[in-house]
Amino acid sequence: MVQLKSDNPSFVLHGIDNVKYEDRPVPEISEDQVLIEIAKTGICGSDVHYLKYARIGAFVLEQSMCLGHESSGTVVKLGPKASKSGLKVGSRVALEPGVSCRVCLHCKGGMYELCPDMSFAATPPIIYGTLARYYVLPADLCHPLADTVSFEDGAMMEPLAVGVHSVHTLGKCQSDQNVIVFGAGPVGLLCMAVAKALGARRIIAVDIQQERLDFATSYVATDSFLPPARGADEEPTAYTNRVAELIFSTLDIPARGKGSIDLAIEASGAPTCIQIGMHVLKPAGTYVQVGMGHNLTLPVPFFDVITKELKVVGSFRYGPGDYPLAISLVERGLIDLKPLVTQRYEFKDALEAFETTRAGKDPQGKPVIKCIINPPP
Amino acid sequence: MVQLKSDNPSFVLHGIDNVKYEDRPVPEISEDQVLIEIAKTGICGSDVHYLKYARIGAFVLEQSMCLGHESSGTVVKLGPKASKSGLKVGSRVALEPGVSCRVCLHCKGGMYELCPDMSFAATPPIIYGTLARYYVLPADLCHPLADTVSFEDGAMMEPLAVGVHSVHTLGKCQSDQNVIVFGAGPVGLLCMAVAKALGARRIIAVDIQQERLDFATSYVATDSFLPPARGADEEPTAYTNRVAELIFSTLDIPARGKGSIDLAIEASGAPTCIQIGMHVLKPAGTYVQVGMGHNLTLPVPFFDVITKELKVVGSFRYGPGDYPLAISLVERGLIDLKPLVTQRYEFKDALEAFETTRAGKDPQGKPVIKCIINPPP
Amino acid sequence: MVQLKSDNPSFVLHGIDNVKYEDRPVPEISEDQVLIEIAKTGICGSDVHYLKYARIGAFVLEQSMCLGHESSGTVVKLGPKASKSGLKVGSRVALEPGVSCRVCLHCKGGMYELCPDMSFAATPPIIYGTLARYYVLPADLCHPLADTVSFEDGAMMEPLAVGVHSVHTLGKCQSDQNVIVFGAGPVGLLCMAVAKALGARRIIAVDIQQERLDFATSYVATDSFLPPARGADEEPTAYTNRVAELIFSTLDIPARGKGSIDLAIEASGAPTCIQIGMHVLKPAGTYVQVGMGHNLTLPVPFFDVITKELKVVGSFRYGPGDYPLAISLVERGLIDLKPLVTQRYEFKDALEAFETTRAGKDPQGKPVIKCIINPPP
Amino acid sequence: MVQLKSDNPSFVLHGIDNVKYEDRPVPEISEDQVLIEIAKTGICGSDVHYLKYARIGAFVLEQSMCLGHESSGTVVKLGPKASKSGLKVGSRVALEPGVSCRVCLHCKGGMYELCPDMSFAATPPIIYGTLARYYVLPADLCHPLADTVSFEDGAMMEPLAVGVHSVHTLGKCQSDQNVIVFGAGPVGLLCMAVAKALGARRIIAVDIQQERLDFATSYVATDSFLPPARGADEEPTAYTNRVAELIFSTLDIPARGKGSIDLAIEASGAPTCIQIGMHVLKPAGTYVQVGMGHNLTLPVPFFDVITKELKVVGSFRYGPGDYPLAISLVERGLIDLKPLVTQRYEFKDALEAFETTRAGKDPQGKPVIKCIINPPP
Repeated sequence: MVQLKSDNPSFVLHGIDNVKYEDRPVPEISEDQVLIEIAKTGICGSDVHYLKYARIGAFVLEQSMCLGHESSGTVVKLGPKASKSGLKVGSRVALEPGVSCRVCLHCKGGMYELCPDMSFAATPPIIYGTLARYYVLPADLCHPLADTVSFEDGAMMEPLAVGVHSVHTLGKCQSDQNVIVFGAGPVGLLCMAVAKALGARRIIAVDIQQERLDFATSYVATDSFLPPARGADEEPTAYTNRVAELIFSTLDIPARGKGSIDLAIEASGAPTCIQIGMHVLKPAGTYVQVGMGHNLTLPVPFFDVITKELKVVGSFRYGPGDYPLAISLVERGLIDLKPLVTQRYEFKDALEAFETTRAGKDPQGKPVIKCIINPPP
Repeated sequence: MVQLKSDNPSFVLHGIDNVKYEDRPVPEISEDQVLIEIAKTGICGSDVHYLKYARIGAFVLEQSMCLGHESSGTVVKLGPKASKSGLKVGSRVALEPGVSCRVCLHCKGGMYELCPDMSFAATPPIIYGTLARYYVLPADLCHPLADTVSFEDGAMMEPLAVGVHSVHTLGKCQSDQNVIVFGAGPVGLLCMAVAKALGARRIIAVDIQQERLDFATSYVATDSFLPPARGADEEPTAYTNRVAELIFSTLDIPARGKGSIDLAIEASGAPTCIQIGMHVLKPAGTYVQVGMGHNLTLPVPFFDVITKELKVVGSFRYGPGDYPLAISLVERGLIDLKPLVTQRYEFKDALEAFETTRAGKDPQGKPVIKCIINPPP
Repeated sequence: MVQLKSDNPSFVLHGIDNVKYEDRPVPEISEDQVLIEIAKTGICGSDVHYLKYARIGAFVLEQSMCLGHESSGTVVKLGPKASKSGLKVGSRVALEPGVSCRVCLHCKGGMYELCPDMSFAATPPIIYGTLARYYVLPADLCHPLADTVSFEDGAMMEPLAVGVHSVHTLGKCQSDQNVIVFGAGPVGLLCMAVAKALGARRIIAVDIQQERLDFATSYVATDSFLPPARGADEEPTAYTNRVAELIFSTLDIPARGKGSIDLAIEASGAPTCIQIGMHVLKPAGTYVQVGMGHNLTLPVPFFDVITKELKVVGSFRYGPGDYPLAISLVERGLIDLKPLVTQRYEFKDALEAFETTRAGKDPQGKPVIKCIINPPP
Repeated sequence: MVQLKSDNPSFVLHGIDNVKYEDRPVPEISEDQVLIEIAKTGICGSDVHYLKYARIGAFVLEQSMCLGHESSGTVVKLGPKASKSGLKVGSRVALEPGVSCRVCLHCKGGMYELCPDMSFAATPPIIYGTLARYYVLPADLCHPLADTVSFEDGAMMEPLAVGVHSVHTLGKCQSDQNVIVFGAGPVGLLCMAVAKALGARRIIAVDIQQERLDFATSYVATDSFLPPARGADEEPTAYTNRVAELIFSTLDIPARGKGSIDLAIEASGAPTCIQIGMHVLKPAGTYVQVGMGHNLTLPVPFFDVITKELKVVGSFRYGPGDYPLAISLVERGLIDLKPLVTQRYEFKDALEAFETTRAGKDPQGKPVIKCIINPPP
């Protein structure tokens, strides 16, 4: 039997760059819910964005909100109907932080990520987040971890599920495909890892920082490409064509047929990458947009989309089956998450993790991929 | 037995605005081909574009080329292997004008429209077109017409197949769906007709000319919408949002859930329509780009694409099954093509048909939808 | 405001051929549920089977159970969270009688009909049915009916949803397809009606009763076929081949290519129909098994399945989107349910409706398609 | 430049158990064809069946026919249009032995394996086979082999393509799925190898010979199961249920939910395996029938098919993309074909290879998986 603690230390956002530690009440659970004691929490770009702007797009902070949504933990209490899920007190789980309405057409139709009534951890108007001692979820959103999977790995299942959703569920990546991934940050790297785990033949990393490309190839990419700068008076289309030709010639990739690029994952949000991505794809190829930059309306080369009948899809969070596959890939050793955890922090130093993530380097100059925060002592 | 004529009068493009009638040799057929005596030929915007510019994108006129690719006719001769197709001398057929290589991955994979070695009537480097007495095709690209289907209808199967490809094959339009079509020109109208024939609940026509909208609703659209002008200093995104809200409120359409818009067909190529189309679609909706304007790189609202996980696809010509379905829809009375033929010309007046199509109105001021040209006498 | 009555007369099964009228308590509703006053209830073969055997397969009557699951009615009370569904007191609705768990992989994956914890009206261990004054459902399972759709039509949405699930959702019936339906009972007829509404070209009814075939062709079938008796010493395979050839020659249908049979719906459960169905399908055709006879293990011609790469699927109840499409097809006049209601009964005569359904004819000898029962007065 | 030899020694079947070596003319090639000098040829059960019965089903030997269809070789001559395929004199290739018509709906629709005019090596009425010095194919059916892939591996691409077609193309096997394969002969083993290469979690081999199961687990299976004998008076359904329960309990597999069986590949043709396969599948699971026993009409448990909405598909040969994926899986080391070649023969001893395949053991008692025959000297 687990001894419940009586306090619930929480890392709470009150406004722009205004966070405080608070002791919130230990939450009650309803009959199909479980109470989880948080073990590890990862920091994501969106967490940092809330800290910096108190909003993301239409999601505006209106009450103080506990931060954190990438977490693992231990089940410490179950509602009466939650036990038939197979969970027990002591079960080690990854937390899927979005609770959908269960009854709309999207929830019933197999795409709950599109539910308009989604309650998502650390996303207004929800006031709860996982940077606390305790968190509450319906039992079906607590995904059991094998003993061989660490809590740190468990905390990274959330961004990995984003990669699974983009590469597997929407991108339909198959064995022998050639995949190009734009952006070698955490999401891009996890997309590359998923592509490799699914049997992609070549995984081509594209980024504008050589050190990120070096890491990508040391991790899972088979190839990397650093785009040259655009000429002073080079037209965007001419630049796109030049870079595409460079990719083809440098990496010995044909524009179509055997060995051409089947799938593009765009995780940078950079306008030039969108154009290059669609331009290097083979006819009937698939393009998945997962990264989201500041410019929400961006130019698309429709000549490519039409004459090659490309399929362009947007990827938003994750849906049914994405967490289980993410966990399986890690459990079976097909994805190694350890190299991605570059910094670790105590709960009391959570703000430092945010600052490091924001800076992209820690004070010693070490590049950041993922910062992990320990639970309250 | 059909008596073959010895001449083959042809309407031949030699350069920009330079067409001549020539008597070309009656073509020979190989063992799997048939010789067709052309009955009716429609004029398409791309024909006019070649007349005006002697090129379309990368397809540049380098030798004199017979124009015309939307035709019907009568089989007058068959190669020895062509007869097992079921065709006979006297068979009335619609001509599918693109001959693909049959052996590349696209041809074998069910998407022959993407074949890199496609030979397409009246498209360089092919020098043959259907504005002549005779044309040659492989037997499988001659689609039999029921006696109840006229040769004029037969000539319109080509643009109708574009509509079938966009709405049915790629758009996967289903009964009860709500479809919005941008652009009420020939291709847009045919897309609306296909949507109606496939059981769409609402078919919303959007165009900037009221008279085209009036025709669309008199034809098959259930609703129409004329976008207001953009304010002098109105930002594009604000304009898009305003128009989308107007569509929702004017036509009583919700943004999501029951009654929302499932499918957008963009056949205008106008940048604002692309943005509005993606903005009014429901989550998980499908957007098909079929029209192609002059600006080949156009802005896309990625916020919509991502947060609604839209599926954006380009539509190029037509593939397996599109012609047969087009013919069936007409033969069964589910599509009436007659209202779309607005002008008819003798073969000797072919240039006039091009000029009228280019002008968008005939000399009497009657708006053009489709001009049809009779065969040489 | 609707005045709730204080009684809840119910038609309750206590054992084999043992039904009684009882006054059960008016049910309470929880926060996301609504209370419905039943308007019309149809009788289904499975209702009769419970009356006769007190079980269907593994579903065994262990407590007294109210019968009835094909119903329409009026919303008379809503839980606090049910109102955001758009339902109001007075809303006329069709009742979807299966309540799934919402959290298993099937529910979240878009196939809630496979939920292992389904609670289905009048199916043990559930003790509630719709042959009563009141019934309780979650709001999302009450499907609004347009004013032009009668309560009788509303009661028939349940079997029609079975047809939609079989023909549309699983059979993927498309415009221009040729569909063969085995069994011209209620489910078979509704499958034919769905095929017609979805634009099937030919709908071929097969049954061993000429009068049922006559009704089918007077209703929606384009063709009918009465199989000849099997010869005294005719081998099953020889018989199958003979019947298939007869279908081809009598109805002028080719075995493959243009005009061949795309989709077979088997709603009779007869072993010979299964074999004939797979034998007449074109290569790559789809076969849907919806009827369920007594012999649960039946012979399948694997030579056809393999050499034609048939897709054979089982159809069980209905899933997301099936009710809404069923209602739309009726509302838009694409399906007329009225000819299918052959007998009507007062609530006090419910047993008579069961007996008539069981007999297949009413006392005057009129064949039964569907019996409808009025609500308690 | 390759020196063509002037003879073409061929292993020719004249009737039941009647084979002779003959010197046939070196074949001519047409413009899109290539001439291949055969390197290695595997022997398949169907080859043996022709030797023993001079027919398979409707394919009846009517003229003498060269045997062999599982081969690799070297391109020695190309027709003028064949060179644009990228092939050159000296290219090492795997031979895809079925030449389809290219123009029927199946060929154009992406399922050329269903072409009614397929010309298939060593299958009447075709009189050519690959057990000869030379063979002719269209260029697109000669699949290049990397230098690291041996000719023996190349000869096994034909049966491996059958496995790819069954497990990948039709079975849609995905990472993390659990797959059960009935029959541990060559085709079953190759299906297991494909499932493993595609990332299946568990691969359960079922066979009635323990030594075949032992080989399967030493090769790629994660689990094996030897069904117990059916009791003297045990009913088939009771037996199926008992075996299914044994599989679940012995291997710790649930009937549904996490860890249940997603995909069944039936490569034995045994009636009990068909029943067990459908009974152990999870709801919404996929069943692929690839093996073909003598009894072509076999009992199917429709209760499982319906209540679990199983998808049952037949697998016939291979289609677009299957050969390239097969080759890629071997080239990338994801499948090792070497353990499957158990016997090797000189061309002059070809009959011995047939006898050994027929016997299932070589004269030394070594079990046969695949016999490979060398080319004529």
